[in-house]
Parts: sequence; structure tokens; C-alpha cells
Amino acid sequence: MKRRGGIASQWLLKVVAGGGRGGYAGDTARKVSFEAPRKFTTVFKSHLKETFFPDDPFYDFKGKSLPVKAKKAIQYFVPIFQWLPNYKAKLFLYDLLAGITIASLAIPQGISYAKLANIPPVIDSSFVPPLIYAVFGSSKYLAVGTVASSSLIIAATISTKVNPTENPQLYLNLVFTATLISGLIELVLGVFRLGILVDFLSHSTITGFMGGTALIICLHQLKGIFGLKHFTPHTDVISVIRAIFQNRKEIIWESTLIGAIFLIFLQLARFVKQKKPKLFWVSAIAPMFVVIIGCVLAYVWHAEKHGIAIVGELKKGINPPSLKNIDFDRKYIAAPLQAGFITALVALAEGIAIGRSFAILQNEQIDGNKEMIAFGLMNIVGSLTSCYLTTGPFSKTAVNYNAGCKTQMANVVMSLCMMLTLLFLAPLFSYTPLVALSAIIMSAMLGLIEYDKAYHLYKTDKFDFIICMAAFLGVAFVSMDVGLMLSVGLALVRALLYIARPTSSKLCNIPDTSLYRDVEQYPDATDVSKTVIVQIGSPIYFANAGYMRERVLRCVRDEKANRLQGDDVEYVLLDLGGVSSIDMTGVETLVEIRKTLEAKYIKVVLVNPRLEVMEKLIVTNFIEKIGKERVFLSIEDAIEGCKFSLSHERYL
Amino acid sequence: MKRRGGIASQWLLKVVAGGGRGGYAGDTARKVSFEAPRKFTTVFKSHLKETFFPDDPFYDFKGKSLPVKAKKAIQYFVPIFQWLPNYKAKLFLYDLLAGITIASLAIPQGISYAKLANIPPVIDSSFVPPLIYAVFGSSKYLAVGTVASSSLIIAATISTKVNPTENPQLYLNLVFTATLISGLIELVLGVFRLGILVDFLSHSTITGFMGGTALIICLHQLKGIFGLKHFTPHTDVISVIRAIFQNRKEIIWESTLIGAIFLIFLQLARFVKQKKPKLFWVSAIAPMFVVIIGCVLAYVWHAEKHGIAIVGELKKGINPPSLKNIDFDRKYIAAPLQAGFITALVALAEGIAIGRSFAILQNEQIDGNKEMIAFGLMNIVGSLTSCYLTTGPFSKTAVNYNAGCKTQMANVVMSLCMMLTLLFLAPLFSYTPLVALSAIIMSAMLGLIEYDKAYHLYKTDKFDFIICMAAFLGVAFVSMDVGLMLSVGLALVRALLYIARPTSSKLCNIPDTSLYRDVEQYPDATDVSKTVIVQIGSPIYFANAGYMRERVLRCVRDEKANRLQGDDVEYVLLDLGGVSSIDMTGVETLVEIRKTLEAKYIKVVLVNPRLEVMEKLIVTNFIEKIGKERVFLSIEDAIEGCKFSLSHERYL
Repeated sequence: MKRRGGIASQWLLKVVAGGGRGGYAGDTARKVSFEAPRKFTTVFKSHLKETFFPDDPFYDFKGKSLPVKAKKAIQYFVPIFQWLPNYKAKLFLYDLLAGITIASLAIPQGISYAKLANIPPVIDSSFVPPLIYAVFGSSKYLAVGTVASSSLIIAATISTKVNPTENPQLYLNLVFTATLISGLIELVLGVFRLGILVDFLSHSTITGFMGGTALIICLHQLKGIFGLKHFTPHTDVISVIRAIFQNRKEIIWESTLIGAIFLIFLQLARFVKQKKPKLFWVSAIAPMFVVIIGCVLAYVWHAEKHGIAIVGELKKGINPPSLKNIDFDRKYIAAPLQAGFITALVALAEGIAIGRSFAILQNEQIDGNKEMIAFGLMNIVGSLTSCYLTTGPFSKTAVNYNAGCKTQMANVVMSLCMMLTLLFLAPLFSYTPLVALSAIIMSAMLGLIEYDKAYHLYKTDKFDFIICMAAFLGVAFVSMDVGLMLSVGLALVRALLYIARPTSSKLCNIPDTSLYRDVEQYPDATDVSKTVIVQIGSPIYFANAGYMRERVLRCVRDEKANRLQGDDVEYVLLDLGGVSSIDMTGVETLVEIRKTLEAKYIKVVLVNPRLEVMEKLIVTNFIEKIGKERVFLSIEDAIEGCKFSLSHERYL
Repeated sequence: MKRRGGIASQWLLKVVAGGGRGGYAGDTARKVSFEAPRKFTTVFKSHLKETFFPDDPFYDFKGKSLPVKAKKAIQYFVPIFQWLPNYKAKLFLYDLLAGITIASLAIPQGISYAKLANIPPVIDSSFVPPLIYAVFGSSKYLAVGTVASSSLIIAATISTKVNPTENPQLYLNLVFTATLISGLIELVLGVFRLGILVDFLSHSTITGFMGGTALIICLHQLKGIFGLKHFTPHTDVISVIRAIFQNRKEIIWESTLIGAIFLIFLQLARFVKQKKPKLFWVSAIAPMFVVIIGCVLAYVWHAEKHGIAIVGELKKGINPPSLKNIDFDRKYIAAPLQAGFITALVALAEGIAIGRSFAILQNEQIDGNKEMIAFGLMNIVGSLTSCYLTTGPFSKTAVNYNAGCKTQMANVVMSLCMMLTLLFLAPLFSYTPLVALSAIIMSAMLGLIEYDKAYHLYKTDKFDFIICMAAFLGVAFVSMDVGLMLSVGLALVRALLYIARPTSSKLCNIPDTSLYRDVEQYPDATDVSKTVIVQIGSPIYFANAGYMRERVLRCVRDEKANRLQGDDVEYVLLDLGGVSSIDMTGVETLVEIRKTLEAKYIKVVLVNPRLEVMEKLIVTNFIEKIGKERVFLSIEDAIEGCKFSLSHERYL
């Protein structure tokens, strides 16, 4: 209270005592800073840091001794050294429970998604990668596993080169190659801290992309549900529906009935979880339950005689090495390269977004670039041990979190459960009917089509909705990469439009205050006599410099036309407070604006240029040309300045 | 003076009378506007207008009667109706002089550039297009003609498909086709008001591109200067130098000597103009002078016997129709398409920029989109009357302006001079030695390599310099399209980095004022107790939302570490005054920031959200969640508010 009183009375004093020319602008406290520009290297370093280390990962290292630094560095790069030393038996109980729960989900999901990727029904991918993640990963809650979207991308891309039924071994090799490539890309992105690339996948793009992928996967599962023998390898809605229609005579009613029952059961389980979050385990064990019931049914009822296909022989034994399977043959390399690149980005975006969402729930932060390194390592090692692409799937991570996991140990537990299964229980699962797997996948996918989110986007931001629908429709009706590129392209066009056509507004005085705000937003605000105040709200540079000039000149023209007689526009105040940077084209535009306006006997005054802009205006001699007395710290000061100091000045 | 006193004393009164909780935030004058968001259609219309009609071309039409509107529309689309009715005999004298001057430049330039484009030495291109421009063009000073850069682009692109010496007719046909395509693209861009595309060619790109092109053209002219018979069709520096070296035995010393003398003479003429702008005509008639001297020399001295090549037979007669020459054959169409597209953009960017530069000198504005339509029409008609690509060349326009032209009539005069030349004088020019043309082109090109501008860029903006050099080196050492794409690509990356990594800064109070400014820029500014003020300086959306979160949280973390005991951070003020828009990802990020901070018992307060942002925050219910009492109109208000109203509030 005291402080404000102090300021106000000072002001009053100044107003009473000061007055006349320069009485205001000369006040030292309100001086604009014309410091010499920072050195190029300083600015460059700071930009480099902001671009690649926005999260300031080495903050904790400052001012520490060398051994402490070394220890911290190891802990930073290999997080297991951070959490394992403090690990307590009490925590293990939680992690054990969570680990077993996600393992029960991993077995049916692993088999299902392998089927989706057109590779043999292996669950090896849930054994090695979780162990790697436990060592290098920084998220406590993330549960490692294969995901439907990446499985389908791999299948869709590699099938175009090699038919998985005709040449299964080559196909499998290319899948491992794609996994290796994907892992390498993730590792490189992480090491070079290119997390910035993932920033360009917006929530809207991801929502649409996931929805479209989920729809396609759902439709593909109808093959399993109907028990069809023939189907299409294409992944667009029209091909899939046509394939079902053409093969409608193959539909097996027993399969359809069982599939429908399973699907309804799984959906009910999810519904229970939604209504009573405490009963989350119902939904978590439901897939395992469906698989067991399916196996029993198939065994007792001799399902194959009724035309219901089962998974068939599942090999016992843990992951064989697969280095020899990696295939960089020129003839095929394009497919795994493409698959690897897309899946790396999608899996990263998904994995990081999911890890982050759960970290936020517990008010912690995770480092996207470090996560990338962990994902990369886990996929590189995975590709050499018969695993295909893994990331942090939403469903599994949610179950892990709800089951009360405390550390990355839950992944270790899951991994051990998978090992036991691989060693001893695998043959039991060979009776799993395909229709059960289809029902599990379909049920999971139905949850990923977020109608409500799309509707919310429609309500709140039409352009975001269009970006979302571009991804959805592109994926559903053309192909995954087209959908993704279309959506990212639109988002970039929007971003470029933001750049090319930034908002600038005319400011007016809010009555009885010293505030100046956008007159469109505050219609009661009043004009300042003889003065037009234009707020420029974005960096000024090549893409928008021409537009800025038009806007400012147009605004002045309109004002000249609208003002009363005797209130000619004499000053144009450019409020640069929102301009974070400027390039050469931008500076030249300011020169042009000034020339044009001064020729009309209108003086241009700059208000509050920020650090970077001021530096550029100084090195280009713009400040020298316009004169330091034409630059003010606030709009108020500028208006005072115009009244007193500048009114006696001569024109150009 | 009165006004300010009024405000200050009101403030004092308020401070004395008010006090205590809410005494400040409740002030009606300082209310934040929570108006219901504007309708989608309103916003969309406004965006559409800003995107495609930033120059508000129909401003004059408002409130006029229908016949007036119709008349204005005709005048708008066909500017000749605007200036011709008011045309006076006195103006014609100026235009006549200017027209004759540019015609004297057009003859040697026309022959030279045609040679550059590998087409027969015709000057037809300076007859029809200027007439069309005089009708549809809106710039008074622009002189129509062919330009070196486009000529070379056409030659470089079409030569890859058809060899101009082996198949000259097909080659010529494709040049006309490229001109037609270029014209159509310009017309379409103008009609759909896509002038926005040209915005993405920055000054730096154009400087580098022109410099690189000029260098290549200069080197190519060495063929003519040295009188070589064999040369390379490639357009990169290395190929050209190698070609000169390989054919060094063909060098004719007479030719080299004459070329050097001509070149020195032309450069001296330019030097005279630079020193004494009044003697501009020396430079303007110098090329014509060189051509005449060359012709006389060649005729008297029987130049061909000394191995000095001359232009050879020049056909008499005005432009034959060339509709039948247009060739859309699938086999070749790629080349004219590419040439048409690049030349359309380059010619437009150059033409519009040049037209604008001269308009600014006279304080007038020209409409880029209308210029495009004029350029498009002039090239479409041109391509059907044996003309190749024309635009507004810098040299010619500068001469036109300096010669005192007043209206587009100068183009008509030039056109008539060209007609007379075509009808009667053409054979006289057949003796023009090629070495004279080479010297003219080389001299013109030397002026386009703007070392000083590049150095200025290096001094003032390193990234702009890189963009410029990318264009220069790309054009010089690879090819024109690679250079252009590289440079535009870099400029876009920079633009996207501006988006992805916007500046945000910590604000502090400037002592003895109520101003809050970036503490990095104003190091004397002091912290506000218990409060961190972060200014966000750009739209918040998908590409930078994650970064923004990091920045805000990092800033709060640093502050928590640096503040003295007893001065815990309790409030975070987000100054949104510089945030011109926000998308869904951005809103979700604000939600995340709030969640994270509130969990640490830090309250988030918003300051001065702008119109678009406020609308989005209202429709997404963010304002409702955070509470209207947490939104303030200015930083001062917010600090007051935190002290009084919010300090008693409970946490989440």
C-alpha cells in the first residue's frame, strides 16, 4: 500500500513541478536502455541453448565439485543409478503388484499386436526392452510394450515390398531392420536434442492420427471376428469394407457370435472402470480372462473343426539373437527406412506425451530428449534380440499407474513374468482363438477414437479441428503417411500464416487510467488527440514485413479519415513491446514506414523496443536516424514526449 | 498536462480512499473485458480479409452509389481509365523523353538478353508487353522489359530437355510455352490474391539470388568477350571456369581487347552516374552508344574476317503471332513448367519489389496483387505474339524514373519506338558484334552483385547473411533452383524456429516507476516481493507450447532458488500482452502450468490477455476454472490484486 502511495504522489509532484518541454522525458528513472548490443557469440550461445536445451538439464550441476558432477552425470544419463540406491522393500510390493498386472495385459496384447504387424505370434518384445528401459528410462510410470499404431504402420509399409504370407522370413527380417532404424533415429534425435521435431506434432494431429489409425485397425479386426479367410492388405476404409463385402460368404456365424460376446464383455469391463475407477483391475485382467476362456473353449470344443482359427504353435524359449536377421538389402531398404522414420516419430510423440501426462499427475517433469535416448537404446537392443518396435503404450501405462507402481522396477517385474511365460507357459497360449485377439484389439482401439475431443476442438478452435480431421480422414481413406503429412502440413501452414499475418491492433486510452489497450477489445477506450497508437504483436521479418507496412499505413489512413477537424494525426506511436525480434527486411520496412509517414508530416515514435529488437535497431543505425529522443519506455511517456519535446522539432 | 495531472491525483485519491482488500481490483475503469467471444464467421471473415486483402483495396468503394462503384471498379481493374482521362499534353513531354531514353536501352538489352536465353536476337518482347502493361499496370515508373535472371533461368531449364543449337525451333516453342505458363501463374496468383507467397522471398534471399545469378551471367559473358566458339551449357561456376580453361586456345585477342574497352567505358559511365546523379543519361545512352560504335567498327573493319562474331541477320517486321508455337507435348512439358513457375515467382518478386521501391520514393502505394494480374496478362499476350518473359527490370525502371517519366505513357512511347525499329531500323543492328552485347550484359550484371549489402547483412544479422549466402553459393555452384530452395528453406526454418522458440522474459519493476520491463535489458530493475512476472512474447501453440512450459517453470525454479528467505514465490504473473493467439495445445499447456504451480502452492495470475486469446480462454472454460478475479488488465493491478484480494484465497 505504501509503495503505491509513494509512486502516485511522486507522479503528482512531478506533474506539478515538471511541466513544459522535456520535463518528463528527461526523468532518469524512465530512460530507455540504449546499451551496446551483446556480442554475436553471446546471443548465438543463448539461442543455441534455448533451441536445444530448453529444459536446462544441467541445472543441478552448477557450482558442484568434479566428483559430485561426475556422479550426477552418471545419474543423469543412466537414471537407474538415481533410483535404485534408494530403493526400499516397501516400494517393491507396489511394483510387484503393478508388474504382474501389466504382464497379464502384455501377453494377449503382445500376441495381438504381433498379428497386427503380420509377424509370428511372439511376445518376446515384452522381455528385453522393458529391462533396457528400466536402466535408462526416466519415467516412473511408463510401461514398455508394443503399440497398435506402430505395428500397423510397419505392416502397411513393409507389405508393399514383401508379402508376409509368401515370404515370412524376409518380412520378419525387414521388421527387425525397421525396428533398428527406428531405434537409431530415436537415439540420434535424443543425443542431438532434436526433441524440437516432436514439438511440431500438435495434440490435434495426434488425436486425429490415433483416431484414424484406430478406425482402420478396428475394421481390420472384422476379418478375425467374422472368421474370414481372404482379406485385403490395403489399409483404407473403402478397400476394407469392399473386402468384407466381397468375402461375405466366408463369414462364420460361430466366430462372429463368440467375437461379439467377447467384445461386449471387454467393453463392459472398460465401462466398469470408467464408472468406478477403483475397479480398474476388472478392465486390466479382462483381456487375460478373454484369452484364457478362449483357450479353454477352443480346447474343449475343438474350435478348428468349426472353422475358428487358433494362434497355433508358440515357440518356447527366450528371445534368440537376431543380428543375422538385420537386412540392409538395397532392394528393400526403402520400406524399413520409411517405416522406421514414421514409427520413430509417432512412437516418440506418443511415448513422450504419455510419459509427460502421467508425470504431471504426480507433479514431476520428465526430459523428452532423455526419454528418446532410452527409447532408442531399447529398440536397438530389441531389434538384435528378436523384438520389434516398442514404446510406452497408453493402455499399459495407465494400468501400471493405476495398479500403484512406484518406480521403473515394475517394468523389471513384468519382464521377468514374460520370461517365465516364454520359458514355461507359451504352449498353453497356442489354443488362443484369433477371434479373441481380434476382440481384444478392437476393444482397445474403440477407446482411442476420441469423439468428444474432436467435438471439443470443433467447438473451441475450427482450424485445430480441421488439422485433426485431416489426419483422421487422411489416415482412414488414403494412408497413414499421407494423413500425417497432410495434417502436419496444415499445422505448418497455420503456423506460417501466424507469422505472415500477425495481429496488430490500434490502442486507445482506457478512460481514467494510464492504460492503453486494443480498442476492439475495450470499445470504451478513447482516442488520444493527434496520435495513433499501433501495437505490433509479433516478430517483424521477411514473411510479414510487407503486411505490417500495409497494416500500419492503413490504420493511419483510416484514422486520418475518421478524426474530427482540428485533430489531425501528427504522431504515430509504434508499440514494439510485443515484437520479440526483427530481421533486416523488418528494419527496412520500419525505414519505409517512417519515410512514408514523415512525407505526410506525421512523426513516428517507437515505444518499448525489446532487447533483441533494440540491438538490431542500433546496429542498423535506425535509432541514430530516428533519434534517441523518439524512443520511449512506455506509451504514457511517449504521449507526454510528443506533447512537449517533439512538437517543436522539425520534419525530415 | 492537465490530463496527466488529473490521472495522477485521481490515483492518489484512490490510494488514500481505497486501501484494503479489493479496493483496487474492484475499480470499474480497470475491468478486464470478458465479452462473449465473437462469432466464428466474424473471426473467419476478418482472418480471410487480413490474409488475402491486407491492403484493403476496396476502401474507396465504401458508401458510394452503384454507378460510382462500377466506375471505380473499372478504374481499379484497368488503371488506364484512371490516369488517361486526366492526361495532359504537358505530362506527355516528360513521358516522351523518358520513353525514348528507355527505348535506346531496350534495343541492346533486348538483343543481349535474347542471346542469354539462347533464342534468336529478337527485340519483339519490348513491343507488345509494354502496351498491355500501360493498360493494366498500376505503377507509373515501372518500365517493362526482359531481365537477365529470368532469361538465364529459362535457358538453363529448357536446355536440359532440348539443345537450342540442334533444335532451335522446338527450343523457341518451349520458351514461348514457358512464358505462357509463367503468365498464367502470375494471373492466377493475382486473381486469388496470393501475393502472400511472394512475402516468403526475403530481401536476403533476393540479394543472394540476384548476386549469384549475376556472377554466373558475368562468367558466361566471358565466352563473348574472349570470342570463344565452344563453351559449356552448364550454369555453375566450376563448369564455366573449366570450359574457359579448356578452350583457352580459341581466345581471340582482338575480341578480348575490344570487349575490355567497351566494359571499361560502360563501367565509367555508371561511375559518372553514381558520382553525379544528374548525369544519369550518360549511363542510360552508353549501351546504345556501344552498340552503334560496335556496328560501325564491325562494318568498316570487316569484323568477321578477324574472327569477331556479329549478331547476323535481324528480321524486319513486327511480332508474328505465335499461338501455333505453344507446345504442351508431354515429353517436354516438365521443363517449361519448371521454368514458368520459377520465373513467375522471381519476376514477380523482383517486379513488385522494384515497383514498390520507386513508388515509395514518391510516397505512393502500389497493389502487389494488381501488379501480378498486369504481369500475367502481359506475358500471356506476349507469349502469343512472339515475346518471351517480361517483367519490370531494375535498370530500365531506374532509367525511366530518372528520365522524368510521369505515367505509364512512357511505356507506350517505348513500345512505339520499338515498333519503328522493328519496321525500319532492324537491319542496321545486324552488325552488332557479340562482344559488345557481352560487355553490356556484363556491365549490367556487375552492378547487381551487392557486396556492400552482403557485408551489411553480415554486420547486422548473421542468420540473414547465411540465408543470403545460401542463395548466392547455391546458385553459383549448383543451380538456380537449388540455390533458391535452399535459401527459402533456411528462411522458413528460421521462421519456424521463431515460432518454436519464442522469446519470453522475466519482468522486473523499474525503480520509482510503475513500469515492468525485461530485467536483462534493464538490469537496474528490481524484483517484486513474492511475485515472479513472466512475459510471454508470441502466440502460444503446438510448436512452442512445450517450450513455453519449460521456460515458465524454469524461471519460477530459478527464482525460488535465488530469492532471499522469507520472500517465497507465491504468485506467478503471466503477462499475455504479447500473445496474439493461442491454440488448443496452448490452452492445455496453460492448464498444465497452472496445475504444476498450484501444486507447489504458487498462484497463477493472467495479465492483459488480448482479444483472440481471451475468447479462446473463455470457450475452453479456462477463465472459469482459474476464476475471473485472477485476470488483470495490467501488471500493476495484478500485483495489487495479489496483495489484497488473492492472499486470502484458498489453494486448489
